[in-house]
Amino acid sequence: MTVIRPKVLRLGPWKFSEKRWSELATIADVVDCESANREEFLKDLKGKYSDITSIVRTFCSIGVTGRFDAELASHLPKSLLSVCHNGAGYDQIDVQPLTDRNIQVSNITTPVEAPTALTAVYLTLAAMRNFQWGHDLLVEGKWENGGKCAGVPIGYDPEGKTLGILGMGGIGRAIRDRLQPFGFGKTVYYNRSRLSADLEGDAEYVSYDDLIATSDVIMVSVPLNPKTHHLLNAETIAKMKDGVVIINTARGAVIDEAALTKALQAGKIGAFGSDVFEFEPKVSPELSSLPNVVSLPHMGTFTVQAMENMEIFVIDNVEQLLRTGKVNTIVPEQSGKDFGHPALLA
Amino acid sequence: MTVIRPKVLRLGPWKFSEKRWSELATIADVVDCESANREEFLKDLKGKYSDITSIVRTFCSIGVTGRFDAELASHLPKSLLSVCHNGAGYDQIDVQPLTDRNIQVSNITTPVEAPTALTAVYLTLAAMRNFQWGHDLLVEGKWENGGKCAGVPIGYDPEGKTLGILGMGGIGRAIRDRLQPFGFGKTVYYNRSRLSADLEGDAEYVSYDDLIATSDVIMVSVPLNPKTHHLLNAETIAKMKDGVVIINTARGAVIDEAALTKALQAGKIGAFGSDVFEFEPKVSPELSSLPNVVSLPHMGTFTVQAMENMEIFVIDNVEQLLRTGKVNTIVPEQSGKDFGHPALLA
Repeated sequence: MTVIRPKVLRLGPWKFSEKRWSELATIADVVDCESANREEFLKDLKGKYSDITSIVRTFCSIGVTGRFDAELASHLPKSLLSVCHNGAGYDQIDVQPLTDRNIQVSNITTPVEAPTALTAVYLTLAAMRNFQWGHDLLVEGKWENGGKCAGVPIGYDPEGKTLGILGMGGIGRAIRDRLQPFGFGKTVYYNRSRLSADLEGDAEYVSYDDLIATSDVIMVSVPLNPKTHHLLNAETIAKMKDGVVIINTARGAVIDEAALTKALQAGKIGAFGSDVFEFEPKVSPELSSLPNVVSLPHMGTFTVQAMENMEIFVIDNVEQLLRTGKVNTIVPEQSGKDFGHPALLA
Repeated sequence: MTVIRPKVLRLGPWKFSEKRWSELATIADVVDCESANREEFLKDLKGKYSDITSIVRTFCSIGVTGRFDAELASHLPKSLLSVCHNGAGYDQIDVQPLTDRNIQVSNITTPVEAPTALTAVYLTLAAMRNFQWGHDLLVEGKWENGGKCAGVPIGYDPEGKTLGILGMGGIGRAIRDRLQPFGFGKTVYYNRSRLSADLEGDAEYVSYDDLIATSDVIMVSVPLNPKTHHLLNAETIAKMKDGVVIINTARGAVIDEAALTKALQAGKIGAFGSDVFEFEPKVSPELSSLPNVVSLPHMGTFTVQAMENMEIFVIDNVEQLLRTGKVNTIVPEQSGKDFGHPALLA
């Protein structure tokens, strides 16, 4: 049997996993994408990258290649067995065209949970307690003559409040676990399907409509896809409690940002904490300048440890593919499919 | 036996406990302090307030009366049995002169723990992850052309880090419990005396010197008193790890703010998160303008529920005094002392 030397194409910077890449380089060629833009990338896929085995990609690499959509898929070489994404959310990838070409897609699961959940907790505490607002008043020099707490509006404690988690996957559960000691009165969740009792814990499974109508804090933790695009919109926001707090660490476009901004301006929504925005890195100043908006520039997994863990997780996916023919963490849309890929390495 | 109608003098605003005050008013006269300043207050203590039984006071009321020091104590009437403070920290009160005059001093214990601990967790997450910094860059419009996460420096996760809690009282333990799910590698603490095993939990008792030298995050949760004034100073900061994160939800003057600012500017301290400042409400712009300083205008207990719980806690102290001769939560300096106060009510 002829052993083919696999070739891994890297899109985006990989800064935290040099040692692990050196290990992979002993069993595969690792090449960095040199295409300057999508046009060049599509051409190179037919040229110098026409023999690649696996693509690894980052969220930021969309700036070079654009979306992994049907058009891009049609340029992918027959040698390609997998696209391994360095992130939990793979909404930049249209899975079906890749499935049609028998290409496996993997994403990141466990390594993103803790840092993303920490981010969600931060946003929740900030939004409920008006901490960002208070900080701004302090920095503006308003404390000395602004009265108690620089005149910031008084906040609310979690005690007695209902936390509603929209999307109770690994990240949603990690958020629940980290908010547990803060003593919310009740935690409810909605998911495509009810969790097993051990995963569900003390959280109560409710309908989407019930969650929207009864939660004091709504935590958005669903993947972005055509079904969840603008899941929160003017109509659903109208059904929420007055003064509701909304937190988003998933994807901006799960919320209709224009409707959200209007509801914040009208006082319907009490506060909004978000790490993600519909048109990021563009954020409308109408939204970001509101004192009750706690915004972050997509920092959910931006830590030394998480970046390293995630990059290694991707490399592990590639190595597993090369050794067994199957990536470790195939995306749910492809779950159960038999790709019939061979193990390329003994 | 002649039943004396007790009189309670209120200093500061009491906005969240009207119903409970009405109840107290059935057994005692409740009067609001009308003195405009310290001079007038000292005079009124010899005049219209010369028959008061109990004083209740707030942190902000120092603006009218000044410190409860030996001078003020010397003006207090013989009828006065207690000074009940609406806060955990009673550093505005010199206890000894009141003890000498046989006056009980009470503070708030449990109601402040959860909201203050929440504030400490917020500051910790913000400081370790550079969230405040990232937010600022976003609001300044730096994300679109500022690269990944708007160019903010990468943060650190709690995993593998050592959390050092300086002062493991009720608030310190509440902080520990809320940070537990975030997975710090190790939690160490220093206290005047070692806690019992059940209170100590997984935290490890270490010397002050060890805590300072080995912690990645130093959590200040000690009361301010002559022994803790400038507990953290240039000398102790020099012994800390490079890049240490310091969090303070106790009192500003526990830290020498000038030395702190220099150490932040020099990069010795990685980040500082604080709800309290040495000369608050004045905060030096040299300190507050640093991007790695997360500052709040003393919002630790600024919530609807906490304000109500605290006010009711004070009133409960007063009622207990009137009914039994003893406040519920006497300060540690007076613990065990027999004041010999009578129960004024049957």
